[in-house]
Amino acid sequence: MTSERVWTAALVVIGDEILSGRTQDRNVGQVAPWLNQHGIRLAEVRIVPDDIGRIAATVNELRAAHDYLFTTGGIGPTHDDITIDAMAHAFGVPVVEHPAARKILEDYYRDRPGGLTEARLRMARVPEGAELIANPSSGAPGVKMGNVFIMAGVPGIAASMLEALTGKLEGGKPVVSVTVGARAPESDVADLLRETEAANPGVAIGSYPFFRDGRYGSNFVIRSEDGELARRTGDELSSKLREAGYEPVDGGL
Amino acid sequence: MTSERVWTAALVVIGDEILSGRTQDRNVGQVAPWLNQHGIRLAEVRIVPDDIGRIAATVNELRAAHDYLFTTGGIGPTHDDITIDAMAHAFGVPVVEHPAARKILEDYYRDRPGGLTEARLRMARVPEGAELIANPSSGAPGVKMGNVFIMAGVPGIAASMLEALTGKLEGGKPVVSVTVGARAPESDVADLLRETEAANPGVAIGSYPFFRDGRYGSNFVIRSEDGELARRTGDELSSKLREAGYEPVDGGL
Repeated sequence: MTSERVWTAALVVIGDEILSGRTQDRNVGQVAPWLNQHGIRLAEVRIVPDDIGRIAATVNELRAAHDYLFTTGGIGPTHDDITIDAMAHAFGVPVVEHPAARKILEDYYRDRPGGLTEARLRMARVPEGAELIANPSSGAPGVKMGNVFIMAGVPGIAASMLEALTGKLEGGKPVVSVTVGARAPESDVADLLRETEAANPGVAIGSYPFFRDGRYGSNFVIRSEDGELARRTGDELSSKLREAGYEPVDGGL
Repeated sequence: MTSERVWTAALVVIGDEILSGRTQDRNVGQVAPWLNQHGIRLAEVRIVPDDIGRIAATVNELRAAHDYLFTTGGIGPTHDDITIDAMAHAFGVPVVEHPAARKILEDYYRDRPGGLTEARLRMARVPEGAELIANPSSGAPGVKMGNVFIMAGVPGIAASMLEALTGKLEGGKPVVSVTVGARAPESDVADLLRETEAANPGVAIGSYPFFRDGRYGSNFVIRSEDGELARRTGDELSSKLREAGYEPVDGGL
């Protein structure tokens, strides 16, 4: 679309509970738009099981292929939280206790029932050479190792960590999305969509059909790094839909 | 856990709308338990963009690494539906019109407004050599190519295709899950969990904390191919939680 550099990131969602279908992932939906605000494209997501070898191999492949790699899950206090060990394995370094992380946990658990147990102290473990990511919501920090950002799996805690990182990552231009909806089966307007995309180099138009309240509808999403072009293409598509007898809905249905 | 063969599958979720965070994936949550019923482990999920090269490379890597590969998304009638083209590219075969798929679409659209348009006819395209997967809910079939099952992205339609495939895949033993919940912060019972897992070879115990209604709680999921062992371990964990002063909740919180 442009000759400017495109910054990319990958996300690894770690956990048997996501892969078994027991728990619905909620982190793709918050990491992707956060990255886009920073002008970074989420280029790939992988969901992997709680397996040190599998996590380490995935991390090594993706941290080399992208500007940034984010992971969610597996940094809690229990025996099945193995992300830090997998990360140390991936980087070929030992796991060490991070003094500042220990201090954070000491302060956080000082007046809480049970205090700083051996299990909770696990959350001060990092791959040697790592930095911390602040966690304003529940104490135990995230971990930054090279271009890898290791975050909690609980969505509210991952959100806190993202907030702590806001504005700190270099990126390019955000992608601007404009959505136009219509009570049109997408197959009726397929030509119109293809022509509109072809007539506007630099935009990609996605078509997302649904069936709701007994009626067919579609949302058409126009994406571009050029916001003005995206908006102009959205207006053009709206006009064409209206001419074709469908009432367009700005912002989508 | 056992020396029996473990059957595995991967799932590729195809679509910019999932990767951008605009649309929440709902297919992992239905494909994973369906596979488990057939004794097949979902070993990995990848979410990839609408890009023929990226889809083809991912498909070729994963169809070689697993017994089965499932894909969702990108088989509709519009220009951004490129999964069939990507699949043909991956297998090194041309895209052809499947006569039985054309027949299905002719019948389906005969009495529907607009009839069988050129756009709708796109949904009869398959990689040469493919078979069809029935779609009782909306006509346009899924596609089976070798060990790859190509399904729709709309969750209700993907569910219909899974139903059409039920009982038709070879697999091993399903994993049995037993869930025990407690109003316990997971870090308070970390030792107890580790010891219970260690004392019962053949089980894996996952710990999934949450914060709800202002209180901490956790669900502990015991997984094993040996159902009796999973249930016995669940009972053992319940007893230990009770001794530690926490009221266990069978089936989880």
